[in-house]
Amino acid sequence: MWFTAFDIIGTVAFAYSGFVAGARRQLDLLGVVIVAFLTASAGGALSQVLLGEVPRILTDRLASGLIFGTVLVGLALHWTGIRRVERRWTFVTADAIGLAAFAMTGATLALSHGLAFFGTTLLAFLTAVGGGLLRDSLIGDIPVVLRSGFYGIIAVFVGMAVYACDRLAIAPDIAPPAIFIGAVVLRLIAHARGWSLPVLTLPDD
Amino acid sequence: MWFTAFDIIGTVAFAYSGFVAGARRQLDLLGVVIVAFLTASAGGALSQVLLGEVPRILTDRLASGLIFGTVLVGLALHWTGIRRVERRWTFVTADAIGLAAFAMTGATLALSHGLAFFGTTLLAFLTAVGGGLLRDSLIGDIPVVLRSGFYGIIAVFVGMAVYACDRLAIAPDIAPPAIFIGAVVLRLIAHARGWSLPVLTLPDD
Amino acid sequence: MWFTAFDIIGTVAFAYSGFVAGARRQLDLLGVVIVAFLTASAGGALSQVLLGEVPRILTDRLASGLIFGTVLVGLALHWTGIRRVERRWTFVTADAIGLAAFAMTGATLALSHGLAFFGTTLLAFLTAVGGGLLRDSLIGDIPVVLRSGFYGIIAVFVGMAVYACDRLAIAPDIAPPAIFIGAVVLRLIAHARGWSLPVLTLPDD
Repeated sequence: MWFTAFDIIGTVAFAYSGFVAGARRQLDLLGVVIVAFLTASAGGALSQVLLGEVPRILTDRLASGLIFGTVLVGLALHWTGIRRVERRWTFVTADAIGLAAFAMTGATLALSHGLAFFGTTLLAFLTAVGGGLLRDSLIGDIPVVLRSGFYGIIAVFVGMAVYACDRLAIAPDIAPPAIFIGAVVLRLIAHARGWSLPVLTLPDD
Repeated sequence: MWFTAFDIIGTVAFAYSGFVAGARRQLDLLGVVIVAFLTASAGGALSQVLLGEVPRILTDRLASGLIFGTVLVGLALHWTGIRRVERRWTFVTADAIGLAAFAMTGATLALSHGLAFFGTTLLAFLTAVGGGLLRDSLIGDIPVVLRSGFYGIIAVFVGMAVYACDRLAIAPDIAPPAIFIGAVVLRLIAHARGWSLPVLTLPDD
Repeated sequence: MWFTAFDIIGTVAFAYSGFVAGARRQLDLLGVVIVAFLTASAGGALSQVLLGEVPRILTDRLASGLIFGTVLVGLALHWTGIRRVERRWTFVTADAIGLAAFAMTGATLALSHGLAFFGTTLLAFLTAVGGGLLRDSLIGDIPVVLRSGFYGIIAVFVGMAVYACDRLAIAPDIAPPAIFIGAVVLRLIAHARGWSLPVLTLPDD
């Protein structure tokens, strides 16, 4: 049940982040739809292909309907002049929600395939950052996962936390939403305060 | 039968577009072969991997033979001084033919796997634009599917038309070549006239 | 047996090349780990997905342990001030070893799946250049396989040589290490002397 909820939340949030990113780059209508689509589906499709499944985006009407619906809502807000939705913080918030939600679905999918600690963490990471990495590459930006000091590490934390809660049978009803909300809040605080990880200094050549 | 014909047409056309793109960027011989190869095989390989098949480029001698043959013909034309083949319109024409042919094979493959309307359209799109997107990324261009106003939408139209003709059993002998030719012509007209889709304007931040 | 040896060598070498590339770009700690990880695992994961296998990086603790161990050693060398390890030639050597080792594993994997001459060569190439291509794209460089005159061709040579030795049953005990060492030496000589392949000249448009 939580899996479906996080899948819906992540799909809508990443579709919206892709819509905003495409609109900010002044892509045309199809370009905006493509970027929204790939952002919302690439991470999940990657993890499903890695595990030998046919990506659900090809067969599942819910996912494609959610993405198109999100783009239509975005266009309605855009064309009715309510443009505040395209501001920077809207993008960051949608991206943070998508990151946390897809890290949850990636970790859950990994557990259902019997992966161990490392595989669960890696799949949470790939599912969560795959869409945003493709989005930023397509519009010509440096991917946020490389640019931002405290982004991909959150997906890693989520994967570790989901694995630990599953193995130790900690609060199966409360743990998933708690981890998800904690991850979103952590990402927004990290963005607002400009948290970063230690940087390796460049040696003389 | 039509599937094989469109597969051959698309492979040769995209291999040639990759050869021309690589030659225009003054890549070395292997670079030109790599770009021709990936352009001609990436879209088909992507759709086959998504559907759980082993990409035919790994096992099928016809496809690899066609690509190498196309590069050899291109090199012969290049080195014999008949350089007009590398002009801009040659590239655009080869790219338009590849786009239409691979949209046909992607849609046909999707139907043979029992995908519904949306899955068929998506697979037509991914098969058709995958190779060109990789080609443009490799040589450092913004992908034509994001740059051009009326490119990816043609693959979407092809996917929808193939699905509709299949479900409504419209002219199974004549529909595939008609859709293909229509798509090539539409793309060339769109390029010549500079057609575009509506662009979303940039909001103040 | 050789397969496992080359897999270990290639994983450590490419992880180290990714660590150095990330450190030179002054990425943060997680960025360096990500780049090391993707460089060391992307080529193998690609060839395994193409052949319908679940990538071993998701399930195999050895590979992930090797990558983390390599990054830890790199960090220890970096933070203890022994920075010479990050110089240009360290990167080129690690990259050459990874290229040769992963070309060996790609070709061996292809043979074990019954692929023919072309498929074996292609898989050797994709396995060997996949990680480096992703590494260079992530840090914003033009991929070395397109930039360098004599890089990808070495993976092609390895694929051809492994296929020939297997089919002609030439020295099964000595051929693998001989091909591997020959490939590393060839790449280093090619780099030192600036070897290149013929370049196609740009036509007037």
